[in-house]
Amino acid sequence: MSPVSRAGAVLEIDLGAIVANWRLLVQIAAPAECAAVVKANAYGLGVAPVATALAAAGCRLFFVATLDEGIALRRALGAAAEIAVFNGPLPGTAAEFAAHALVPVLNDPGQIAKWAEAAGPHPAMLHVDTGMARLGLSAREFAALVEAPPRIRWRLVMSHLACADQPAAVLNAAQRARFAAAAARLPEIAASLAASSGIFLGPSYHLDLVRPGAALYGVNPQPGCPNPMRQVVRLSARILQVRQIDRGETVGYGAAHVMAAPGRVATAAVGYADGWLRSLSRRGGGTIAGTRVPLIGRVSMDLVTFDVSAIPEELARPGVMIELLGTGYGVDDAAADAGTIGYEILTALGARYHRVYRPPDPPQ
Amino acid sequence: MSPVSRAGAVLEIDLGAIVANWRLLVQIAAPAECAAVVKANAYGLGVAPVATALAAAGCRLFFVATLDEGIALRRALGAAAEIAVFNGPLPGTAAEFAAHALVPVLNDPGQIAKWAEAAGPHPAMLHVDTGMARLGLSAREFAALVEAPPRIRWRLVMSHLACADQPAAVLNAAQRARFAAAAARLPEIAASLAASSGIFLGPSYHLDLVRPGAALYGVNPQPGCPNPMRQVVRLSARILQVRQIDRGETVGYGAAHVMAAPGRVATAAVGYADGWLRSLSRRGGGTIAGTRVPLIGRVSMDLVTFDVSAIPEELARPGVMIELLGTGYGVDDAAADAGTIGYEILTALGARYHRVYRPPDPPQ
Repeated sequence: MSPVSRAGAVLEIDLGAIVANWRLLVQIAAPAECAAVVKANAYGLGVAPVATALAAAGCRLFFVATLDEGIALRRALGAAAEIAVFNGPLPGTAAEFAAHALVPVLNDPGQIAKWAEAAGPHPAMLHVDTGMARLGLSAREFAALVEAPPRIRWRLVMSHLACADQPAAVLNAAQRARFAAAAARLPEIAASLAASSGIFLGPSYHLDLVRPGAALYGVNPQPGCPNPMRQVVRLSARILQVRQIDRGETVGYGAAHVMAAPGRVATAAVGYADGWLRSLSRRGGGTIAGTRVPLIGRVSMDLVTFDVSAIPEELARPGVMIELLGTGYGVDDAAADAGTIGYEILTALGARYHRVYRPPDPPQ
Repeated sequence: MSPVSRAGAVLEIDLGAIVANWRLLVQIAAPAECAAVVKANAYGLGVAPVATALAAAGCRLFFVATLDEGIALRRALGAAAEIAVFNGPLPGTAAEFAAHALVPVLNDPGQIAKWAEAAGPHPAMLHVDTGMARLGLSAREFAALVEAPPRIRWRLVMSHLACADQPAAVLNAAQRARFAAAAARLPEIAASLAASSGIFLGPSYHLDLVRPGAALYGVNPQPGCPNPMRQVVRLSARILQVRQIDRGETVGYGAAHVMAAPGRVATAAVGYADGWLRSLSRRGGGTIAGTRVPLIGRVSMDLVTFDVSAIPEELARPGVMIELLGTGYGVDDAAADAGTIGYEILTALGARYHRVYRPPDPPQ
């Protein structure tokens, strides 16, 4: 990677904050076990450094989405960690799952039959759908499975909440009841229902194991309430040029911004090709020396413009960094401005950023 | 890369279509020279294979956004190609530009002064702003430069249109007139104004050199008119599971989709972590065996659900691929459904796709 001095934009990832977030969830969920979801390259933050830091902090079970992600994570973590794969095995891949000691989540009767045949002695997880209608056994399929159990060593039975971020949704209690009834049919097998937001629905949702993802990375698991998680990412983009613009002049594509008064416009080296979503056009802004500067005009592929008229010239000059994400304006704030959720702000974070990992504090 | 048989989603990139698109633009712009813009990893499609195919077809000048992109492209193309860098040199990087024979676009008087001092004998391009207010010299700064020319070997003088995709916008002719007046002050230097859409504003916008990007990759340079460009990408996602859903059951996060009738729902292995934007939730769809299947519910991080009730069961079963982008529904169609532009659909294309490059036809 090139030196930070010539980076157009810098993404700092605080591994200590991720570990602190995991430890907070461990406390809240105890005595349930607390796994970590590191799919999608640890929500865009880098699966190898993130999972390594969590393993060092004591996390023993990691979830990814795909076989390829599982193989990459096995390489990063070595043999000790347990790695589960949400999407389950595609036909013909059972041997690779077994070879890398990856535990598949089996989502339908076809996967279950094939796993029992090809890899029965290797553990697997069972996914029962209780209201997502996405992956997992239907109630009928689950009943059939209990009647005629396949020869599989089950590591976990799990389900997934559809509305955990809305505590008042009636579907939460309905899913919990359905899942409790299912899990009661398999009393020897550990059960898991809650991801990040589900942990905050209370102890009755914790069962034997919780599976936080987004909350580890600073997304608020309780939208509308104060965020109990630490912010993990800081994103800054360098000012390339500052222009004095007259009143009435336009800025950017489509001449989308008209200057209401003379002012100074800073162009910074970040754009939607870096995952600074185009839906942030004319929304949100950045921070220079503690002062907010509004984003004006459209987000371009590689560039964004800010009105820096309120900032002294010596603080808003070429080379200075504008903070886009930090403690004052986090992933959920950017998501609200972009009309999406913090999860997508994270997974969109681009490949051109100069990435800096802040290590966790050494153990005491 | 893992074998295609176990890929959750496959992105096919037709290098022949990119070359055909470039050749069409060469014809339209002749006698002007036709460069190629390959910034942002060739708009997400892979800069090394794309630029290599274009160089083999005769393209001699390539534009990237940053120094790091320039260094990577020099490595891919070898010494023969000319490579220009839009964002210009950050302080202290002139020597690296020169070492890799990268031609910077100089955007402000500070960059110009430093380049004259540090790297004067190496060529550079001059960017004059005529209405973007993003990068480039202001009219006043340009006048000062003409009065006291720096010792720089100019390869090109360029500007950038703000509204080229809106032929009726009055700003187009105004920018052209301003740029013509500027270029007339530097009659020895080649001049360039038009990118993809600008090429279609007519010969008076072509000048000495055109710089297409998006049109090479299949984005329609004339929104609202028939697209003269060939589609370049085909994206397909594998069905992981198909579920029979009763009337009134809900699908996905937030229980956002309610089944109006009993039906079958297919869950496919693609999500917003792959750049299938979350703003496509409940918008657009896919194609199975020539029939459209609507996307229902919210786009998840790794999964998307489709209503496949209209497709025979044997054609919509686990393992089958759903086409998300292709000739019938291209990047501009997805952009319209997502509320963005085709450019962002391209640059968002994710890292988990299994990528297949279709080579250009051999020369005859």
